[in-house]
Amino acid sequence: MNKPIVISVDAMGGDNSPKKIIDGIELYQQKNINIFYKLFGDKNLIEKSLKNKKIDNQSYEIIHTDDYVKDEDSALAAAKRGKNTSMWLSIESVKNKTSDIVLSAGNTGALFVIAKLNLKMIENIDKPALSGLWPNKIGMNIVLDLGANIECNEKNLKDFCIMGAALHKSLYPNETSKVALLNIGSEEIKGNNVIKNTYQELSKFNSPLFEFKGYVEGNNIMCGDVNVIIADGFTGNIALKTAEGTANFITSELKKALTG
Amino acid sequence: MNKPIVISVDAMGGDNSPKKIIDGIELYQQKNINIFYKLFGDKNLIEKSLKNKKIDNQSYEIIHTDDYVKDEDSALAAAKRGKNTSMWLSIESVKNKTSDIVLSAGNTGALFVIAKLNLKMIENIDKPALSGLWPNKIGMNIVLDLGANIECNEKNLKDFCIMGAALHKSLYPNETSKVALLNIGSEEIKGNNVIKNTYQELSKFNSPLFEFKGYVEGNNIMCGDVNVIIADGFTGNIALKTAEGTANFITSELKKALTG
Repeated sequence: MNKPIVISVDAMGGDNSPKKIIDGIELYQQKNINIFYKLFGDKNLIEKSLKNKKIDNQSYEIIHTDDYVKDEDSALAAAKRGKNTSMWLSIESVKNKTSDIVLSAGNTGALFVIAKLNLKMIENIDKPALSGLWPNKIGMNIVLDLGANIECNEKNLKDFCIMGAALHKSLYPNETSKVALLNIGSEEIKGNNVIKNTYQELSKFNSPLFEFKGYVEGNNIMCGDVNVIIADGFTGNIALKTAEGTANFITSELKKALTG
Repeated sequence: MNKPIVISVDAMGGDNSPKKIIDGIELYQQKNINIFYKLFGDKNLIEKSLKNKKIDNQSYEIIHTDDYVKDEDSALAAAKRGKNTSMWLSIESVKNKTSDIVLSAGNTGALFVIAKLNLKMIENIDKPALSGLWPNKIGMNIVLDLGANIECNEKNLKDFCIMGAALHKSLYPNETSKVALLNIGSEEIKGNNVIKNTYQELSKFNSPLFEFKGYVEGNNIMCGDVNVIIADGFTGNIALKTAEGTANFITSELKKALTG
């Protein structure tokens, strides 16, 4: 058997932790073997959640700490809680190369700041981005940035294209990554200056990683013509949350109609 | 009977005109009396569309012109078509006070430019905005700007609040207009500088027209807590089209599922 992938898990992150975190691991374990979990957090609570779970006790270790980042902490306040929070320790474990990946469902702002303090950026990439999967008619889009960077310049947007295409390629190795900039029109002349300049840059940029497909409008995000969609964090967040609100609205109206 | 409201109609605007325009008038006439329509466009085509319609022939006049703005015209090209297009003449009719309102389903960019050339802005309002109705759980939102102004300053956003609230008040006189700025978080510190400054401005601004409710996130546009939603034209357009795309996606997936 190959060397297992080691995943650091901030077991205390987010609502209903560590229960939901352990539930998630149980679910994931059913289909994915050869993974070792380092669980950072309150040992008593984690052990309680692990009881009666179908999780092989050789597949994890618990690293106890009393401290954890709270959801309502500002990013700065979270960093100031020091180096013994479950979030800090789990990230540090990647830095120390004792694990390959870190997962946290906790405070996003804190995760960004503490990760940036501990782990270096990839060379030539200036800003981290939040990305997500967003369904389209034939598969999945990668969309970024979803809210980490309110204002972005041309270099940032170009970086996001490369980062997004790389993520897409690693998740869907058999698909062609088709990158587009989220904009308010499909013609070259539409949009603000940063978007127009980025379009020009990308038109000249020959990447072996992706095909540049120009602009995509909000109503075509889910068409499937492109699968990596790039925006600054403000625009991406507005789009994501508006889609979420619209889906919730339709679902609840539908339920109302069907139940009379 | 009171003096009728006179509506100028650009009968040639948009796809399927003038047929769909005349269909619309027939529909509207069933419930709304004491309105007189000035129909600008190709007399032959308009008369053909009017045949067999239940429209009182005392309730309209046709002002013939051969010229009209095409959907694919740039705003500038449309203005250069001159003063005899159905769009120009219908707008000019409001300027000359021979009608009270102008309606066009034609080229939006052209409509903006030709309207701005002919009709003055309201005093102290710098930019026109595109607004639309957007359903929420308990009624309707007014949302603006939906794409006329890519970049807006604090003054523009504040103007849009007043314009949006005035429109809301005129459509729903019995409701309280609750204004919010579309943003990526509900806390005061979120968003770009223009939004944050506008928030500060509006917090100090006591308008008899509306209550200022702070920020609204994309997922809460349809909650009904606020009913006048303000954004720059870029953000508003992204939100509108993303909502449209999400609704279409859900509807088509649902149809697929229901028809097997």
